[in-house]
Amino acid sequence: MLAEIIAVGSEMLTPHRQDTNSLYLTSGLNDLGVAVAFKTIVGDNRQHLASAIRIALSRADILILSGGLGPTEDDLTRECLAEVLNLSLDPDPALLESLRQRFAARSMSMPPNNARQAEVLTGATVLPNANGSAPGQWLETTFPISGTAQRRIVILLPGPPKELKPLFDAECKPRLAASLPQNHLARRILRMALIPESQVDARTAPIYLQFPDVETTILAGHAEIQLHFLCIKPTLDEAQSRVDAVAALVSAEMSGHIFSTNGDSLEQVVLAALAARNQTLSLAESCTGGWLGERLTSVPNASRVFLGGVIAYTNSSKTLLADVPASILEAHGAVSEPSARALAEGIRRRTASTLALSITGIAGPAIPSGPDSTKPIGLVYIALADPHNTVVKQLNIAGDRDRIRLWSTQHALETLRQHLSQ
Amino acid sequence: MLAEIIAVGSEMLTPHRQDTNSLYLTSGLNDLGVAVAFKTIVGDNRQHLASAIRIALSRADILILSGGLGPTEDDLTRECLAEVLNLSLDPDPALLESLRQRFAARSMSMPPNNARQAEVLTGATVLPNANGSAPGQWLETTFPISGTAQRRIVILLPGPPKELKPLFDAECKPRLAASLPQNHLARRILRMALIPESQVDARTAPIYLQFPDVETTILAGHAEIQLHFLCIKPTLDEAQSRVDAVAALVSAEMSGHIFSTNGDSLEQVVLAALAARNQTLSLAESCTGGWLGERLTSVPNASRVFLGGVIAYTNSSKTLLADVPASILEAHGAVSEPSARALAEGIRRRTASTLALSITGIAGPAIPSGPDSTKPIGLVYIALADPHNTVVKQLNIAGDRDRIRLWSTQHALETLRQHLSQ
Repeated sequence: MLAEIIAVGSEMLTPHRQDTNSLYLTSGLNDLGVAVAFKTIVGDNRQHLASAIRIALSRADILILSGGLGPTEDDLTRECLAEVLNLSLDPDPALLESLRQRFAARSMSMPPNNARQAEVLTGATVLPNANGSAPGQWLETTFPISGTAQRRIVILLPGPPKELKPLFDAECKPRLAASLPQNHLARRILRMALIPESQVDARTAPIYLQFPDVETTILAGHAEIQLHFLCIKPTLDEAQSRVDAVAALVSAEMSGHIFSTNGDSLEQVVLAALAARNQTLSLAESCTGGWLGERLTSVPNASRVFLGGVIAYTNSSKTLLADVPASILEAHGAVSEPSARALAEGIRRRTASTLALSITGIAGPAIPSGPDSTKPIGLVYIALADPHNTVVKQLNIAGDRDRIRLWSTQHALETLRQHLSQ
Repeated sequence: MLAEIIAVGSEMLTPHRQDTNSLYLTSGLNDLGVAVAFKTIVGDNRQHLASAIRIALSRADILILSGGLGPTEDDLTRECLAEVLNLSLDPDPALLESLRQRFAARSMSMPPNNARQAEVLTGATVLPNANGSAPGQWLETTFPISGTAQRRIVILLPGPPKELKPLFDAECKPRLAASLPQNHLARRILRMALIPESQVDARTAPIYLQFPDVETTILAGHAEIQLHFLCIKPTLDEAQSRVDAVAALVSAEMSGHIFSTNGDSLEQVVLAALAARNQTLSLAESCTGGWLGERLTSVPNASRVFLGGVIAYTNSSKTLLADVPASILEAHGAVSEPSARALAEGIRRRTASTLALSITGIAGPAIPSGPDSTKPIGLVYIALADPHNTVVKQLNIAGDRDRIRLWSTQHALETLRQHLSQ
């Protein structure tokens, strides 16, 4: 079974807007064992859209259209489908009434144009949209290919992701599952920080290639590698046992690098490990300017273990806010092993936290002045202070300002994770 | 002139990867007065790709293909074009030699498969790729539509954005400009924070609708509205005077809301305004956890005016790091007008900065305890302290944790910007 997704809307043919619904729809289709063979993006143009629909029906078993269901003259998806399939569009009295009530609820009378949203293709099932005025439609039909009628499923969905996603999950996936051969999908995700993609692939390919019935994907980005394993079998037990088997072998090979096997982020893993040990954390950030704090506090309830910290961006603020002796800054510069150590120890003392992390580095592109002026862009020191000891790591991070700062936060979190897993 | 972009690669038909090259290519084509009418994403499948090429040549004047130019069996773009256009693919001796030298430079001999990358379509011009092994190709040809030969431009580009972008700019844009009617494009961008899109549209539509030759786009996202004006005319002067005219009228209507007319970000505008006044800034962040600091320090040289600050995430850290009296926290809670005021004034005193911003709020989804337990999610206080006075704003921000935190940082920056523009 092959699917095609057509995203309808002229705004997605500009440099500013992109179809993202298709990623969500693809994930849902893959879950049902359906591959997406084509994606088409087309504007609000009657001739273009009708031709794109004709092409899609000639090459795909399942066609999902997103967008073009609004009330304006530009919204042509219903009309173009009716034209291509030679069906009529008839107003649905119940839909019309519920549209009128939507307007009445806001003390408005419905503009005549909005009645178009109540028009339904002959033979289609209306898919109620709890989050907007345009309902979806589900149509099982046929399309002639070389004189033979081929079975086709056509799904119309509204364009806004907040409307499309729940509608697809609630109304389309169960109908698709009932129309397709019974399949069950199992998935496992392993997440690793900082390790090069090529090294992960070299070490794990000999394992995952022994599982030809498991689809393995390596994703690299945001200073992280993810290994996705996916298997589709007639029963869930079969599928689950295959992804579990490959995940277990790969986990053993990469042990120590894997921070999560259940989808949790590195921030979540570190905060949970601190909570489990009843320990608290504080931070002193220089070149990352608060990014590490932002990452940790993106997790709800971080305050159970994360006390806070300082953004010590200038030399004087390192002394004022984290008690770094001015003599250390003068002698070694702010980007140095002694300064990183003093930052972590200083904020740990001030907040009385169990552990403290500090980051100081040269993110570029500007060349710093003073004792740091001869140091290379990408030089970063990370310190982790505990009640007994302070460990400092020296790093040389390649890339631009944004990458150096992101990787600095990732190194700090991974250093803490490894400390906590000892 | 209509263009179609075909992105080739099975990975872009998964839930994990998306074609982004087309946004860049669309921007470049728009600059030349060419609209993109269709985008197609197709996998590494000979039959699918050949059919997609045939369809594109039947409906677009310019066809750009990205990807599928590598050395492996999966890379089929050259072969499929040759098949559809009935052209032969011949090895280019100079290309073959330069490929061999690439391998020789790494002391490797070239695998036989790589010779495929030196194959050129009959009549095509090779577009040298300085950043990879797969060159682009430029082909002016014809395609029969209803028996009439239609003129077509076909461009083959490598898939990696680092290779595609410079190749498109250096080799394709000048050739396209020479093949197309002479046009010049002028663009202006106005940026505004926090104001609702509907209000911007209601106030500006009566102005920009008077400029039918200027394409106006309103983009909303990240707590910001952007108005893009674009005009294409036979001369640059004509185009520029039109976008300048509409931008001037819209700027007058929205005066006070517009923070940038040259593309600068809100962070850049605020830092430049501080530098111009020779003033410094410090921060005390609670619910945003460092995000505001991260935003400011994403700008190189922020340290000229941004001294640093504290992430005062727990009550005790507000007292320890920013001298908020425990009695205020007990009486009013951490999310209160007095606490916001004390945070800003406390960090201003500690760092001796000219100005200080503080943010304290309830980002959810958890319900806080103590005196804050009855306050609604989305309640945020922002304080700005200067040498004479402290102003506190109370906000009620809708949305989830991520949105509440982002909008809090945006409100803080906009509050500061308005203060500095007085």
